[in-house]
Amino acid sequence: MRVAVLAPVAWRVPPRHYGPWEQFASLLTEGLVEAEVDVTLFASGDSLTTGRLASVMPRGYEEPGPPVDAKVWECLHVSEVFERAGEFDIIHNSFDFLPLTYSSLVSTPVVTTVHGFSSEGILPVYEKYNRGTDYVAISDSDRHPKLDYAATIHHGIDTDAFALHPAPGEGLLFFGRIHPEKGTAAAIDVARRSGRPLTIAGIVADREYFETEVAPHVDGVNVSYLGPVGPDARRELLGEAHALLHLIDFEEPFGFSVVEAMASGTPVVAYRRGSMPELIGHGRDGFLVGDADEAVRAVDSVAALDRPAIRRRAVARFGRRRMVDGYLAVYRAILARAG
Amino acid sequence: MRVAVLAPVAWRVPPRHYGPWEQFASLLTEGLVEAEVDVTLFASGDSLTTGRLASVMPRGYEEPGPPVDAKVWECLHVSEVFERAGEFDIIHNSFDFLPLTYSSLVSTPVVTTVHGFSSEGILPVYEKYNRGTDYVAISDSDRHPKLDYAATIHHGIDTDAFALHPAPGEGLLFFGRIHPEKGTAAAIDVARRSGRPLTIAGIVADREYFETEVAPHVDGVNVSYLGPVGPDARRELLGEAHALLHLIDFEEPFGFSVVEAMASGTPVVAYRRGSMPELIGHGRDGFLVGDADEAVRAVDSVAALDRPAIRRRAVARFGRRRMVDGYLAVYRAILARAG
Repeated sequence: MRVAVLAPVAWRVPPRHYGPWEQFASLLTEGLVEAEVDVTLFASGDSLTTGRLASVMPRGYEEPGPPVDAKVWECLHVSEVFERAGEFDIIHNSFDFLPLTYSSLVSTPVVTTVHGFSSEGILPVYEKYNRGTDYVAISDSDRHPKLDYAATIHHGIDTDAFALHPAPGEGLLFFGRIHPEKGTAAAIDVARRSGRPLTIAGIVADREYFETEVAPHVDGVNVSYLGPVGPDARRELLGEAHALLHLIDFEEPFGFSVVEAMASGTPVVAYRRGSMPELIGHGRDGFLVGDADEAVRAVDSVAALDRPAIRRRAVARFGRRRMVDGYLAVYRAILARAG
Repeated sequence: MRVAVLAPVAWRVPPRHYGPWEQFASLLTEGLVEAEVDVTLFASGDSLTTGRLASVMPRGYEEPGPPVDAKVWECLHVSEVFERAGEFDIIHNSFDFLPLTYSSLVSTPVVTTVHGFSSEGILPVYEKYNRGTDYVAISDSDRHPKLDYAATIHHGIDTDAFALHPAPGEGLLFFGRIHPEKGTAAAIDVARRSGRPLTIAGIVADREYFETEVAPHVDGVNVSYLGPVGPDARRELLGEAHALLHLIDFEEPFGFSVVEAMASGTPVVAYRRGSMPELIGHGRDGFLVGDADEAVRAVDSVAALDRPAIRRRAVARFGRRRMVDGYLAVYRAILARAG
């Protein structure tokens, strides 16, 4: 089977730090290669893969360097895979809605991993191509009632890249974009009321929020801000934390950091929204809470959880191979249907 | 011959006031209909045409009303014409670069009127599709040295919609976007030094420039600002002016207001940049000048020009039929080449 994986071109694949869609594209590509599928990854030219790399631009448009016109390079990147459609049995779109609008001009089937809806404004594209292409939801919570889905497939991660920490500490961790949606300020509040230090890692996605709600609390003792961090620091931070605070203010469709924390044996305290109830076993992998008071109590309660068991469950549920098998089943069903 | 005209979807076709690309799409479509071509205009649903209208959105995304996601509707609009490519002998793109990236997925030839380069950043798309599609320049001055062109075709207008004014006044006119590129402030300066009132009409395309460089001079006597105006007011303003001031600060690829002024017999005083030397007969239709001092002298000199002769030349050179014949020749050459 010949599969084209179409990644975004905001960041390198895999991302140096932030870039969950690029992270997914990398995990999928490497997993498909491992499953002996013939994979071509369409991504920025500095991307790393054991599959074949196809690039029209040298680096992602969000990476440091001279500014480039994202709209120009996105359409050149997307059209490239469709112009080469005849080389592939499946085009797997991890790029959001734009590729859908090229899909009916080629005969190669298109599978789209829907990474969530940035707004209801993008729904008309998904509705138009609901019949002609196949969608995969990344959580049941993210399924849109107006759309049909071939499957829900939770993201899988490289669980070998995470491990139980030999000596977890007392500190709490916020890991993700600094943005109101992600609840950075709520994490600062809960950490303070818990009497525990908080480490914050992630890109600043909302500068004003960072300046007003986060930066004034950063003192390097009670609250530390590390900026975005790469894989090594991530592994250490996630493993070492007493708990990950994931006090989100939106219906998050999936959370890589939540699964990565659990793969490190680290409990997660999360607001009961979006995909969180699908990812976190309440009272076993951490706690699903409804407000800050509950979160503060949960932070104390996680001490009683069995960290090796948290990791074991995460490895069983969120391994990359399980995700790849899920996608291979979707591809095979489409190809069987096409005859 | 069956032609699809792909207009932008920022404004209605024809535009209520501003919208030069939409204005071109309307002039072309109506001219093709007049030439008994079977034309389908792809544009916003409120557009007006004697051809067939095809729309995926009810109104342009720049028109008043609830905000819509331009990126979403642009790709739905563009893909629509390519999904229907089999119905047409020619797809005529008046939408800039995005449609080019769909062009090699269909067998219908694509002709693109290049309305200018908003930045060098968009050039990679034009370069990629230089071989597979046909470009038409709207002036020789706008031809990019890296691209090949099937022709240069100056825009044609409906010259019957403009007329000699029975009693032209002493005032000067600025007509266009309020933007540093268009030289609104230079027009205010030259009018003041000429001792003549200035009327300004057009949308505010640069709010800060308007507030700092234009609004402080607007007193309703020496300098008046009318906002954007529709066809009736345009005809009156262009006809009544002593001269149109077109003191541009960029290499403007074409100027509808310049040609419309001349079709009204009104002389134009323009900076000698971009397409201006191609459009304005120096010393006959107005004056091409290099700085404000020259412009002030030219404003006096235009009184000696023969306004009926200016209109006659404009009617001969910039009629819609001449433009349509130029495009029909391009279409026929492409179809002959395709066999």
